[in-house]
Amino acid sequence: MRKIAAITGSRAEYDILYPVLKLMQESVQFELNLIVTGPHLSEMYGRTVENIERDGFTIADRIYNLVNTNQKIGRIISLGNQIPAIAQTFDRLKPDFVIVVGDREEAISATMTAAFMDIAAVHIAGGDIAKDGNIDNAVRYAAGKFAHIHFTILEQHKKNLIKMGEDEWRIFTVGNPALDRFVTTPYLSIRQLSDALHFDLDMSPFLVLIQHPIITNYEQEAYHIRQTLDAILETGLKCLINYPNSDPGNYPLIEAYKEYTAKNAHLFLFQNLDRIIYVNLLRHAACLLGNSSSGLLEAPSLGLPVVNIGPRQRGRVHAENVIFVDNKKQEILNALNHSLYNDSYRSEVKKCKNPYGDGNSAKKIVNILAELPINSALIHKNITY
Amino acid sequence: MRKIAAITGSRAEYDILYPVLKLMQESVQFELNLIVTGPHLSEMYGRTVENIERDGFTIADRIYNLVNTNQKIGRIISLGNQIPAIAQTFDRLKPDFVIVVGDREEAISATMTAAFMDIAAVHIAGGDIAKDGNIDNAVRYAAGKFAHIHFTILEQHKKNLIKMGEDEWRIFTVGNPALDRFVTTPYLSIRQLSDALHFDLDMSPFLVLIQHPIITNYEQEAYHIRQTLDAILETGLKCLINYPNSDPGNYPLIEAYKEYTAKNAHLFLFQNLDRIIYVNLLRHAACLLGNSSSGLLEAPSLGLPVVNIGPRQRGRVHAENVIFVDNKKQEILNALNHSLYNDSYRSEVKKCKNPYGDGNSAKKIVNILAELPINSALIHKNITY
Amino acid sequence: MRKIAAITGSRAEYDILYPVLKLMQESVQFELNLIVTGPHLSEMYGRTVENIERDGFTIADRIYNLVNTNQKIGRIISLGNQIPAIAQTFDRLKPDFVIVVGDREEAISATMTAAFMDIAAVHIAGGDIAKDGNIDNAVRYAAGKFAHIHFTILEQHKKNLIKMGEDEWRIFTVGNPALDRFVTTPYLSIRQLSDALHFDLDMSPFLVLIQHPIITNYEQEAYHIRQTLDAILETGLKCLINYPNSDPGNYPLIEAYKEYTAKNAHLFLFQNLDRIIYVNLLRHAACLLGNSSSGLLEAPSLGLPVVNIGPRQRGRVHAENVIFVDNKKQEILNALNHSLYNDSYRSEVKKCKNPYGDGNSAKKIVNILAELPINSALIHKNITY
Amino acid sequence: MRKIAAITGSRAEYDILYPVLKLMQESVQFELNLIVTGPHLSEMYGRTVENIERDGFTIADRIYNLVNTNQKIGRIISLGNQIPAIAQTFDRLKPDFVIVVGDREEAISATMTAAFMDIAAVHIAGGDIAKDGNIDNAVRYAAGKFAHIHFTILEQHKKNLIKMGEDEWRIFTVGNPALDRFVTTPYLSIRQLSDALHFDLDMSPFLVLIQHPIITNYEQEAYHIRQTLDAILETGLKCLINYPNSDPGNYPLIEAYKEYTAKNAHLFLFQNLDRIIYVNLLRHAACLLGNSSSGLLEAPSLGLPVVNIGPRQRGRVHAENVIFVDNKKQEILNALNHSLYNDSYRSEVKKCKNPYGDGNSAKKIVNILAELPINSALIHKNITY
Repeated sequence: MRKIAAITGSRAEYDILYPVLKLMQESVQFELNLIVTGPHLSEMYGRTVENIERDGFTIADRIYNLVNTNQKIGRIISLGNQIPAIAQTFDRLKPDFVIVVGDREEAISATMTAAFMDIAAVHIAGGDIAKDGNIDNAVRYAAGKFAHIHFTILEQHKKNLIKMGEDEWRIFTVGNPALDRFVTTPYLSIRQLSDALHFDLDMSPFLVLIQHPIITNYEQEAYHIRQTLDAILETGLKCLINYPNSDPGNYPLIEAYKEYTAKNAHLFLFQNLDRIIYVNLLRHAACLLGNSSSGLLEAPSLGLPVVNIGPRQRGRVHAENVIFVDNKKQEILNALNHSLYNDSYRSEVKKCKNPYGDGNSAKKIVNILAELPINSALIHKNITY
Repeated sequence: MRKIAAITGSRAEYDILYPVLKLMQESVQFELNLIVTGPHLSEMYGRTVENIERDGFTIADRIYNLVNTNQKIGRIISLGNQIPAIAQTFDRLKPDFVIVVGDREEAISATMTAAFMDIAAVHIAGGDIAKDGNIDNAVRYAAGKFAHIHFTILEQHKKNLIKMGEDEWRIFTVGNPALDRFVTTPYLSIRQLSDALHFDLDMSPFLVLIQHPIITNYEQEAYHIRQTLDAILETGLKCLINYPNSDPGNYPLIEAYKEYTAKNAHLFLFQNLDRIIYVNLLRHAACLLGNSSSGLLEAPSLGLPVVNIGPRQRGRVHAENVIFVDNKKQEILNALNHSLYNDSYRSEVKKCKNPYGDGNSAKKIVNILAELPINSALIHKNITY
Repeated sequence: MRKIAAITGSRAEYDILYPVLKLMQESVQFELNLIVTGPHLSEMYGRTVENIERDGFTIADRIYNLVNTNQKIGRIISLGNQIPAIAQTFDRLKPDFVIVVGDREEAISATMTAAFMDIAAVHIAGGDIAKDGNIDNAVRYAAGKFAHIHFTILEQHKKNLIKMGEDEWRIFTVGNPALDRFVTTPYLSIRQLSDALHFDLDMSPFLVLIQHPIITNYEQEAYHIRQTLDAILETGLKCLINYPNSDPGNYPLIEAYKEYTAKNAHLFLFQNLDRIIYVNLLRHAACLLGNSSSGLLEAPSLGLPVVNIGPRQRGRVHAENVIFVDNKKQEILNALNHSLYNDSYRSEVKKCKNPYGDGNSAKKIVNILAELPINSALIHKNITY
Repeated sequence: MRKIAAITGSRAEYDILYPVLKLMQESVQFELNLIVTGPHLSEMYGRTVENIERDGFTIADRIYNLVNTNQKIGRIISLGNQIPAIAQTFDRLKPDFVIVVGDREEAISATMTAAFMDIAAVHIAGGDIAKDGNIDNAVRYAAGKFAHIHFTILEQHKKNLIKMGEDEWRIFTVGNPALDRFVTTPYLSIRQLSDALHFDLDMSPFLVLIQHPIITNYEQEAYHIRQTLDAILETGLKCLINYPNSDPGNYPLIEAYKEYTAKNAHLFLFQNLDRIIYVNLLRHAACLLGNSSSGLLEAPSLGLPVVNIGPRQRGRVHAENVIFVDNKKQEILNALNHSLYNDSYRSEVKKCKNPYGDGNSAKKIVNILAELPINSALIHKNITY
């Protein structure tokens, strides 16, 4: 029986981890220990640890490391805070594998801690590149240098890691596990959605907006989000807005949302949409806007058009369903109109193939981790150029 | 005037930094702030912060982060402890550049902290590779992903960084700054050395031994060091032994040294040799043994033969003066005899060229940092494959 | 010149410290270093560090220690986080005196850190007792055991400290320094207040409400605050509500405020009232409600009636201006009516004497700290029963 | 079944806790969780966590918080480091009672953490006073303010706590639990001791020395310990010396021990004597020297004379077996001669009564904790003067 320590700090990570965790929980080959940190434990970000518990997981340790500030220094202090805590937990559990996802604080702190303690670190969704000069790239690649096994989403990501000097045998392209859950999410009708959201989502087309702050230019967040909201108002369509993540710069977004929703009966703001609601909103939406990775990673499985605003997802692999625009009202509006009313475009999007996976990623990961030899060759990486 | 925050945790780092710090201190173009951490502040490692102060530097902040344990968990907890502390200091100083060296805890924690805070991080001696699967490699490369400017020692290191995806314009090959101080260290005669060390270092040839623990097999340290010490005893020569660094596994080395020096009048143990003494010992020594990087990096400038024992330096660029052997008494003894008594080898070594630099590295670094534009292109790294 | 390190985490502390800090800043006998922590640095609590800078102070160090959670564990982790940070700052500054106030995290962590480092710790406003079993009592008394000099507000507090085993010569009753600034705050007319607040505060009487959460029963906060708000609505008077402090349990208060103010045009919510506005609101208010210490400590200097709700201030010394009630609508309403409409009570309150001081506390503190011998007898407390 | 979290950082604490832990481990009424911190986990202090495991306890969490330095700042940083770690462990375990002992870092950090988290904190050995102005007093009393239940060793300690404002019903005088183990330690003959220690402890009288550093004057440690060692040499008796604890100032003690034992065949140094060896050494010793609390707390149960050197134990309750002297060679020698050769003194000491207990303390503690109601009155302390 292999002992697993999986770490998650935010809902986005958890969504990717969930199908892997669920398979491990149901398997006799694994003992799963789930460590929950940061935003999951903060009421300001919806205290999503409770969603995790409702999903049937017990929590091995809660690490309260998130510093309450909007300054740039906040993330790195939060990161430092959690390292001794994670090390203490690893020392108690003595896991065979540590599992993390992506490019947030937990990715670097958990892989680094594991590497220093001679524990095999598994990194999901590494090798990716965002082109905007965000700290996320550095975190993702540094985590990759500490990790011993990589599960990449795209074949291109695997090639990136190999160029970085990672051994090919350590890397497995499996697609995005989040899709496993996404495609199997139970269906809700418009009626059921309306009941769940306590307002009438009638048959008319509606939009969904999710915009996360860009750390590298968050002084302009307030201006940029107004460009988006003004474009949305011009369509005359309903728009459901979800809260941004916990990065610095999210306050001006939240303020703008409150101001616009207070004045416009067509706009609706939600702090923490249940996953099942969110997925079904995408199933019924006419278009997704913003800069959530969901537009690239999940929307193509639904044939949903996406208007991606600003630099956050630029340069990432995507299907035909995404139009990239700048934070300018007219560009956004044009792309929206194309996405909503151009029939040939809409039918092309309808049948696009999702480059990010087929819904079987978690099974691939779990099978590999059940068999992989755990030995010195795994733990002690020789870098060979 | 550019504000600098330089960080050093151990004497080895400080030796590389010193010539850069000294030039900056003497220049009107820089305001130097020196942050001292970890082993520098521990009596167990000679409390070398006092050497730094004797060198004429004032300390901007002392960070007491080193955990008192020999377990593997110690280094990562120490690393975590210092991140909030370093962030606090950067927040107060608001430096233009953060400068670190090499592959220890400070290299990763300071570059990462700087990157999260949008401060330009300068990494000296990156791009190097050690072939033994040590955590140092991962630390050095991860630090490289967070750094904005690289000063590499060898042209090969620059190529490694470029393969890792670093922009070529960010990388400058300058050689090893430690050599600047090394080659200009005042000369001491055998008589002066004897006076300084309080024992008679007569005209007969003598050896110098520095062996650091190997984290990945520290269970065997006790056995390995005895192989070395037994080989030394067979030569019948005097041997001056310097303490190992603070890594886990150093206790068995220290114990063996104490045991052997108590019994053998030819062996002498020193906890913290002054730099000037150490350099002049190398000038007069017949051979250097062990696994200190000094054998590869500095000894060629003196034409000094080196017997490098064990895997710690394997695979690194070196001049003709180094013979690599395993931790086996007979191998060590053979290499020692070759180094000491083979005249053609000794004359070849005498005139070897040091691939690690020419004594002008610090000046190159300081000139570049005085002129480099500090702007968004520097701070926000676009990774482009 | 005596070097001072003063620490403040929250606005309430800062209000008490301010007159002392201002006198020290203007004096040639002191070098003032102000360390700012926790809620001061959080946007959620108004980022009051900016108010401090606007008051003309430079910040010696910013300590980002506040954990973003509403759970009980948050305060103690925040407290632990700041201890190494405070120690690092003390180690750099080497102050003659450390100054803290009251019963929050900073009081215990700074006095304890100073005591371990053999630095004289000055505790303002110790010896007080709140009767509700709150953790504040334990913090205040534990801070008192670590402090070397006490400036108490009331003579009774001095007696309490003596019973606790503190030497009498270490304790000086000086009153509450916050009153120094309070009584000298520039006067604003109703017109000026209206302009500053951007709404018309006409000549009709108005109420002010400040309610902080009670940690020991924060599950009931939502219910209790509704009792208060319903009572206020019945009076038909305007009410200006100020945000609660950062303790766990403040979220339900904020939510209730948002809900009620959205529906009632008579209620106004403010996140972070400028001190000058707040003081002048009290000057013009008909009655203050809630459980802020301001009602006991400051309101009597203005002859302002106070309805104190719930257990938070119970058992503290107070003038005739305070009526204590439970969290019950009818009790609150009765006390409000008495405070607003009983003429003999109002005229008695008008001329009540403030037991908490006369506006000269800071001068007394500064004079004592300028002269006090700093020696081993001060630093090494002998406890003698 | 009541869930217990007991915390111990040093061997001295553990010796007091052991009988309580053992009874709890054997009882069906308790689930015991033992948290091990600081010096227990450091090789420099004998890595005594391994002794604890050999005693049959499993470790719930290991907290690596001890900073590697001899400076005063070390203890407070170590203390701060462990607070978030302890809080995390409490959050996972959700204990009914937290148990700590005495006046070290763990006493204050664990009681404080428990109090902030509304967990009942049990403090053993509070209310005591040492007269030397040591930080220990402040720690012990501050811990007392955070604790909810006190088990005092002496009736006088209970009275001290009551004067401090603690409710009488929270305090139980039970004696020192360490004595429970002490008096039941299996007997070893001189022969068995000699075998265990690997040297011949013949029938001639011998001394035992344990001296801990005094933080408030550790600059003088080197001089003081030489006074003691010189006095011992004059007696011509064998002396077995045990290592000091981990406080700052212990390095000069250790150095002096090494120097003297290297030169004097009568002196023997031990880094970490097994408890059973130590107790039987006291049973056979002619006299105990130094400043260990063992002389006051345990020696009277054996009728063993003690020469207590320096201020560390001054002013504490003791039986007739202790002579207090200053750190002066002649005073020490006189007291030694009196203790060794004055027959009437020796026979008086032989039959003295131990004021610190009768060997049944742990049973009393465990019985009380099994029955005590855990409710709001216990957790929320009302301080009433």
